[in-house]
Amino acid sequence: MLDPGDAFPEHRDFGDDPWVLRTHGLQAEHAAVDETLFALGNGYLGLRANHGEGLPLGEHGTFLNGLHETWAIRHAEGAYGFAEQGQTIVNAPDGKTIRIFVDDERLTLTTAELHDVTRSLDLRTGVLSRSLVWLTPSGKRVRIDTRRGVSFTHRHLARIELEITVLNADADVSITSLLLNRQDLVRERPEPAPAGLSDPRRAETMPGRVLLPALSEQEGARSILSYSVANSGMTVAAGADHSFACADRWHRNSADITGDRAKHVFHVHATQGRTIRLTKTLAYHSSVHGGPPELIDRCGQSLDLAARLGEDFWAQQESWLAEFWQRSDVRIDAEAGVQQAVRWNLFQLAQASARADGKGIAAKGVTGSGYGGHYFWDTEIYVLPFLSVTNPRWARNALRFRQLMLPAARKRAAMLNEEGALFPWRTINGEEASAYYAAGTAQYHINADITLAIARYVRATGDAEFLREGAADIVIETARLWMSLGFWEHDRHGEERFHIHGVTGPDEYTTVVNDNLFTNVMARFNLRYAHRVLTEMRGDHPIEAARLCERLGIHDTEPGEWLHAAEGMTIPYSAEAGVHPQDAHFLEREVWDLANTPPEQKPLLLHFHPLVIYRFQVLKQADVVLAMFLQGGEFTPEQKRANFEYYDALTTGDSSLSAAVQSAIATEVGYHELGYRYFEQALRVDLDDRHRNTADGVHVASAGGVWLAIVHGFGGLREDGDRLSFDPKLPAHWSSLTYRMSWRGSEVEVRLETGALIISASPESQPVDGSFRCTVRGEEISLAPGSSRIVPLPDQGQTHGVFAGVSAGMLPREGETGFLGPASASIPLVTTTIPVLDPGDRG
Amino acid sequence: MLDPGDAFPEHRDFGDDPWVLRTHGLQAEHAAVDETLFALGNGYLGLRANHGEGLPLGEHGTFLNGLHETWAIRHAEGAYGFAEQGQTIVNAPDGKTIRIFVDDERLTLTTAELHDVTRSLDLRTGVLSRSLVWLTPSGKRVRIDTRRGVSFTHRHLARIELEITVLNADADVSITSLLLNRQDLVRERPEPAPAGLSDPRRAETMPGRVLLPALSEQEGARSILSYSVANSGMTVAAGADHSFACADRWHRNSADITGDRAKHVFHVHATQGRTIRLTKTLAYHSSVHGGPPELIDRCGQSLDLAARLGEDFWAQQESWLAEFWQRSDVRIDAEAGVQQAVRWNLFQLAQASARADGKGIAAKGVTGSGYGGHYFWDTEIYVLPFLSVTNPRWARNALRFRQLMLPAARKRAAMLNEEGALFPWRTINGEEASAYYAAGTAQYHINADITLAIARYVRATGDAEFLREGAADIVIETARLWMSLGFWEHDRHGEERFHIHGVTGPDEYTTVVNDNLFTNVMARFNLRYAHRVLTEMRGDHPIEAARLCERLGIHDTEPGEWLHAAEGMTIPYSAEAGVHPQDAHFLEREVWDLANTPPEQKPLLLHFHPLVIYRFQVLKQADVVLAMFLQGGEFTPEQKRANFEYYDALTTGDSSLSAAVQSAIATEVGYHELGYRYFEQALRVDLDDRHRNTADGVHVASAGGVWLAIVHGFGGLREDGDRLSFDPKLPAHWSSLTYRMSWRGSEVEVRLETGALIISASPESQPVDGSFRCTVRGEEISLAPGSSRIVPLPDQGQTHGVFAGVSAGMLPREGETGFLGPASASIPLVTTTIPVLDPGDRG
Repeated sequence: MLDPGDAFPEHRDFGDDPWVLRTHGLQAEHAAVDETLFALGNGYLGLRANHGEGLPLGEHGTFLNGLHETWAIRHAEGAYGFAEQGQTIVNAPDGKTIRIFVDDERLTLTTAELHDVTRSLDLRTGVLSRSLVWLTPSGKRVRIDTRRGVSFTHRHLARIELEITVLNADADVSITSLLLNRQDLVRERPEPAPAGLSDPRRAETMPGRVLLPALSEQEGARSILSYSVANSGMTVAAGADHSFACADRWHRNSADITGDRAKHVFHVHATQGRTIRLTKTLAYHSSVHGGPPELIDRCGQSLDLAARLGEDFWAQQESWLAEFWQRSDVRIDAEAGVQQAVRWNLFQLAQASARADGKGIAAKGVTGSGYGGHYFWDTEIYVLPFLSVTNPRWARNALRFRQLMLPAARKRAAMLNEEGALFPWRTINGEEASAYYAAGTAQYHINADITLAIARYVRATGDAEFLREGAADIVIETARLWMSLGFWEHDRHGEERFHIHGVTGPDEYTTVVNDNLFTNVMARFNLRYAHRVLTEMRGDHPIEAARLCERLGIHDTEPGEWLHAAEGMTIPYSAEAGVHPQDAHFLEREVWDLANTPPEQKPLLLHFHPLVIYRFQVLKQADVVLAMFLQGGEFTPEQKRANFEYYDALTTGDSSLSAAVQSAIATEVGYHELGYRYFEQALRVDLDDRHRNTADGVHVASAGGVWLAIVHGFGGLREDGDRLSFDPKLPAHWSSLTYRMSWRGSEVEVRLETGALIISASPESQPVDGSFRCTVRGEEISLAPGSSRIVPLPDQGQTHGVFAGVSAGMLPREGETGFLGPASASIPLVTTTIPVLDPGDRG
Repeated sequence: MLDPGDAFPEHRDFGDDPWVLRTHGLQAEHAAVDETLFALGNGYLGLRANHGEGLPLGEHGTFLNGLHETWAIRHAEGAYGFAEQGQTIVNAPDGKTIRIFVDDERLTLTTAELHDVTRSLDLRTGVLSRSLVWLTPSGKRVRIDTRRGVSFTHRHLARIELEITVLNADADVSITSLLLNRQDLVRERPEPAPAGLSDPRRAETMPGRVLLPALSEQEGARSILSYSVANSGMTVAAGADHSFACADRWHRNSADITGDRAKHVFHVHATQGRTIRLTKTLAYHSSVHGGPPELIDRCGQSLDLAARLGEDFWAQQESWLAEFWQRSDVRIDAEAGVQQAVRWNLFQLAQASARADGKGIAAKGVTGSGYGGHYFWDTEIYVLPFLSVTNPRWARNALRFRQLMLPAARKRAAMLNEEGALFPWRTINGEEASAYYAAGTAQYHINADITLAIARYVRATGDAEFLREGAADIVIETARLWMSLGFWEHDRHGEERFHIHGVTGPDEYTTVVNDNLFTNVMARFNLRYAHRVLTEMRGDHPIEAARLCERLGIHDTEPGEWLHAAEGMTIPYSAEAGVHPQDAHFLEREVWDLANTPPEQKPLLLHFHPLVIYRFQVLKQADVVLAMFLQGGEFTPEQKRANFEYYDALTTGDSSLSAAVQSAIATEVGYHELGYRYFEQALRVDLDDRHRNTADGVHVASAGGVWLAIVHGFGGLREDGDRLSFDPKLPAHWSSLTYRMSWRGSEVEVRLETGALIISASPESQPVDGSFRCTVRGEEISLAPGSSRIVPLPDQGQTHGVFAGVSAGMLPREGETGFLGPASASIPLVTTTIPVLDPGDRG
C-alpha cells in the first residue's frame, strides 16, 4: 500500500528543462544524494559527482565495474556452504580532485562566499557542469566553470575541464591536480551503526589496506599509478594527463608522485578577465590477470588516444547519446518534471549498462558502493526488458556474463546438493557472496529469472544463435536445478503434484517457505522453455542440438520430465480466500497492521528483527503481483484483481523494486490513479531520495522499473509469444506517450494518445517474421516496414478527457511525435492508412 | 535411528576400576581428547589435562567460568536485532607448565624414551596423577610422578605436585615452573577450515591481543600476573606459589617476570634415589568490576590460604567428594566399564557445576572452549534434573544466574517486539550472542525450559521461598512472552486456537516453523505454571503476591488469559499419520533417506547447507520425543509409541543431546534393547569421542542425560505433581541399579533389582509433606523417615532373568546396597516391612 505520506509528496525542484537536471546554490544538505544524482558513468567507469575541491562531501567514489576486494567473512556462527568470502567493490584512485588557490587562499566550497552556483547534468550531451563565482576574502571575484564527462565511446576515459577567470583584478592563481588513492586514505565513512541499527544495504568497510601500490609513472603533465588489490589479486591503474592554457605566463611546478598520490601543480599570475583553462584527462584500467606494467601501458595508450581526440571527446559523447535517445527515449506530454525525471531514469540505465561489456550490471551501476557493488537479479528482471528492445547488444552482453558464470553456478549447485546450475544470489566474481541465505541463497528464483531474460532477449531479437552459442546451456541447466530441487507428492485427491520447498521468493519479508507461488510459476516457465528450446533446436539445428545433448549429457527422457514437472507444478490457490497465497502457508500467518505502523518504524527491515517480520503477512515487495506481471497468462483477470487487492494492502514497498510493478498491475486491473501514484514513487525513488539511501548509489532496477511502468503499465504492452499485445491505459492527465522499440527486426514507434494508439514501423526495419505483428486489445495488426497504423482507443479508463475517435489532430505533429531523437536523426513515418509527411519535409 | 556402526562399537579401555579412569602408555593420538577426559574443574576453575611438559598437545586450556572477551561480529549481511557482539571464553594464564631438565636434557614426552607411563583420574579423590620413568639419552633412569587437583572447597585454588627421582645415578636436575599467557602467545590452533567445512561448534579465534598485561608481582617463590581483557574490560589475575623439598642441596635461580610470563627455576644436584618434591599452588581470580590491584590481592590471599592448608588440600577434596558421591552416586551391578563410565559422567556434572556459584553452567563446563564457553538450555533441561534432586543448592545457584539475567532478557524481548522476557539462546554475559537466529534466537523454547527447571527445583525441594525471592518473576515474564508471541485464530470448526509461529524447536535440522509441538507443549506448561504460582502465592503469601503484581504490573485479567491460551494451545496432531507432527507442516516435507546416507556425510551439519537439511524430514534430535519425555502427561502411551517409532527413524543423533532422551523413551515405549544401545551411546559420547569433538570439551548436557537415561529411563522415574512415580525397566543384563535422591525433604535411596524395587527413606529425612510419597506402577506408597518398602516387580520387560517374586536374596547386602558412599558415611536402612540390620552392625 502507498504510504499516507505519499499522497501529496513534495518533489525536489531540478528546473524545468526536460533534458537537464539542474540545481542552484550549494545545497550542502543534498551533497551525498547529489553525488549520486549527478554521477557520470558508462557501465564500466563511474565517477560520483564529488566536487573537485573536496567538500561538501557525502562519499568519494570512483568505481570500475568488477574491481573488487575479497575478504574472509567472520561468521558469528557459520555453517556448511555459507559464503566464506565477501566481495566488495573497491574505490578506484580518485582523479576528480583539483584544488584551487587564489592569492594563496584555498577554495573550500563549504566556507567560501559563493555566488551564482549552478550545477547541471545534460542528458543529451552527458556533460556535468558547474559554474560559480567566488568572492575571495581579499575581495577578488573569481568565476569558476567546470565540465566533466565519462566517455561512452571510449570506456576507459573521462575528461574534466576547468576554467578560471578573475573578474575584477589580477591575482595569483594556483591549481593542484591530484590522483589519489582514497580507498585506503579516506576514513570519513560513518562509524558502524549502534546495535540493531546497521543497514545491510550498505557496503562493508574494509579493515586494512586494500590497494597495494605497485609501479607508478610520471612524465611531464602525466602520471599513472598502479595497484594490486590486496586479497582479490586484481590490478588497477589510473592515469591523469593535463593540458593547461592561459594567455598569461604560467608554469608547472615539479610534480611529485608517491604510491598513493600523484600531484601536478600549475601557477599563473592571472590578468583580470583572462580565462585560465585546465583540461584533465583520466584513464582507468583494471584486470583480473594483467600485471601492473601492462595496465600502466594501457593507461598510457588511453591517454594518448584522449590527447588525439581533444575536444572531439564532447562531440562523440553527444553523437553517441543522440543515437541512444533515438532508440530509447520515452516522450511524455504531461506536466513539467515528469519528462525530465523519466529521461533521468533512462539515462541511468545507459550509464549502468552501456559499456559494462563483459561484466554484470550492479544494483547501483557504477554510481556508488551500495550493496557492495554486487550483481543481483535486478539486471534480468528490471533492466533487461528495456535493453532487449532498445539496446539489445547490451542485453546480450549482460547475459553473456551469466554464461561465463555457468561453471561456478554448477559448482554451487553441487555444493547445495542439486543438479544443474545454481546462480549466486549476489556476486561480483561469480561466487555466491550472500552469507545470509534466508534472503539470499534461498532465492532460487534467480535461476528462472535469468532464463526468462534469455527467452525475452531471444524473442525480441530473433537471435536464436545466441541460444546455440551457449545460452541454451543456462536454460537447460537451470531446468535441471528445478527438477532436482523439487519433488513429487500425491495430493489428497491422489493426483501427483510437483513441489518446491524451502525457498524464498522476491519478497524478502517472507523467507524459506514451501511452494512459493512466484518461484513455482517461474520454474514452470523455465521447465517449459527448456523443453521448447531443445525441441526447436532439434528441429532447426539437429547437429548442434545433438552436440548440446552430448555436452550436457541430456538423457532421452529428460525433456519429457521437464514438461511433466511443469504441468504438475503446485500453484497455491485458496478458493476460500479467492486469492493465490504467496506460498503454501502464507495465509496462516498473522496480518501485520500496516496502517498503524508509524513512519519512523519504516522500512521494517531497519526496525524489526527478521524473525518478527517473517511471522506476519507483510511484504517488502509483492511476489504474487510480480508473478502476474511476468507470467500474466497464468492468471485470469479476476484473479489478478483479487490478488492485487489482497497483496497491495500488505505491501510496504520497503523494496525499491516494488513500486514500478505495483504501478503496472494496479493499472492493468483498473486502479489507474493508484497505478499513477506508484509510478511517481518509482520515478522519483532517487530524485526525491525516497528510500533515504540514494547517497549509496542509483537504484538502477527502479530506473528500469520506470520504463516498465510506462511501457508495460500505461502502455499496456505484453509479450504474447512472438507477438506484442497492447491494452493501453494512458494516464488521464497525459496528452500523449511515445516510445520506441526494436522487435524482431522491426524498429517500431508507439504513440499513445487519449483516443488512439499509433504504431509505426520504420522503413529500415528488417522483420524476422516478414512484418511486425501485434495485437491491440485482441485486434491483430501486421505492419510492413515503413507503415503505420492508428487504432482508435476511445476508452482507456481515464476519469476525464476520454477521447471518442480519431481525428487529424491526433496525427503526429512535426518535431513532437514521429521517430524520436534529435530532429536530424529522425526517421520518417510511413503509414498504410493515412498520408504522412514526406521525409524531406521534416526538420 | 542408531547408526549401523553403533551396533557393536569398540569401546576404549580405561581399566577396570569402577572409580578410576586409567590409561597406559603415552597415547599421543589421544592427546587432545584425553586433555578433556582427564580435565579437572570445580565449575569455576578448569584445567585441561595438558602435560606440564607441553607436548603432546591438543589445546592448552585454563578456563574461568565467565571470563570472556567480546568482539564485534562482522556480519556478511547484518539485520536489525542480530547480535552485534560475540562473546568468547578466554584462556586464562596457564600455570600447568613445568619443564624438567636432567643433565641439561629437556624432557619432551613426544620424543623421550619413556617407560611405565600411566595416567589416572580418581573420581573419589579428584586427583589426576601421572607416573612415568624416563630413560635419558645419557642413560639415566628418572622416575617422575605428578598429582594435580582443582579444589572443590576453595574454588580459586589448584595444586600440582611433582616428584622426581633419579633411579640409577646422580644427576643435575633443573625444574622451570611457568605462569604463561597462552591466550595470546599460542597460535597453534588449527587454521580456519576450507570453504564449506568450518565447524560451528568450535570457538572463534581472536584476531588480536586479548589479555593486556596490568600489574604483576613477584616475591620469593611466588608470582602473580594480572590482566585486563581487551574489549570486554574484565580483569583476571593468576598466581603461583612454590615449595620445594629435597634432601640434597638445591637453589632457586633468580626468578623473572614479564607481562606475559612469570618464571621460577629450581636447581638441584640430585643424589641417586633421593626424591625431589615441587609443590606448585595456583590461584585464579577474575572480575567484571574489580581492578588488577584488587585481583592481585585476592590471589595473594588465596595463595596464603593454600600455604596454610598444605597437604590438607587433598583430604578436603576427598571428603568433599565423599559427600558428593554419598548424595549422587548411581551404582550399577553390570558388566565392567559401565559403572566406571557412569561415574565419570556424574563426576563431570560436579566438575561443571559445583562451584559455578553465581555463573552459568557452560556447554563444556570448564573443560574446553567449545561453543565459545556459552551457556545454553543444556543446563536447565539436562543438568538441573540431576542437580535438583542430588545437589539442590547448585541447582538454585544456576537458576539464580537466570534471575540476574532477567533485565537483559526483558530488553531482548522488547528488541524482538515482545512483552515479558526473552532469554538469550547462547550467552556468557546475559546478552544474546547467537547471530544465527534460525538455530539460535528462534529457539524461544529456552524460556519455557528455564521455567520448567524452576518448577522442578521448587517441586523437588519444596523451596517455594525461591519463587517469592524472584524466580516467580521469570515464570511470569516468560508466560507473558508466550502471550505476546502467540496469537488467536479460529480453526475450520470455528474454535479458537492459540498459535505460536516462526520459532525453532530443539531440533536444529528444522528451523523457523509454525506451531512447533515441543515449543507449544512447553509454552502451555509455562502458562499454566505461571497461573499456578501466582494463584498459590496469593493464597499463601498475599502480601508478597500483591508486591509481585505491583512490581510486574500484572493486570487482573492476565492470569486468566494465560490459562485460556494454555487451553487453546495448538498441539499439531495428524490423525491420518497417527502421530504428532513436529510442527504444523512437518509432514509435508520430503523424507531424508537416512539409511542410505554414508557415514562420511555425517554429521549432516558439516556436510550439507542448512537450506538443504531444512527441506527434509530429518532430525538432529527428536523434538517430539523430548516433549514426551518432559511433558509425558500430554500424550497417551499409544501416541508415545507411534511418535517414537516415527521420529526415531528420522533422527540422526547428530546432536549429543539426542541419545539419552531417545534411550529413555525407547525404554518407556517398550524398545528395551534399543533403549540400552542409545544409553550406551550417551554414556560414551566423550569416552569414545563419538562426536569427534570431545577435544573441544566435555559434553556436559550428555553427562546429565546419562543420569536421566538411567534414573528416568531404566528407573522409570517420572515426576507426577509433588509425587514421584516409578515404572522401572531394569536392563536385562543388569542385576541391580541403585541411586539416591533428595525429594521434598526426604533422602531416598532407590534400589532396583530384577524382581523388585526397594525404596528407603533415610531417618534423617525431614519430609515437607509429612512423609515421602510416590507411586510404583500406580500403587501409592508413603514412607516415613527411616522406613523402606520392597515392591515386587516381576516383569520389567526383560528378555531373560524375569524374577517372579521377592526373597531374602533380594535384600540389600552389606556394603553393596543400602545408602551409598564410603562405608563410614553410610546411613542405616530401616524398613517398615522387613527387619534390617542394626546400624551398629554395619561397617
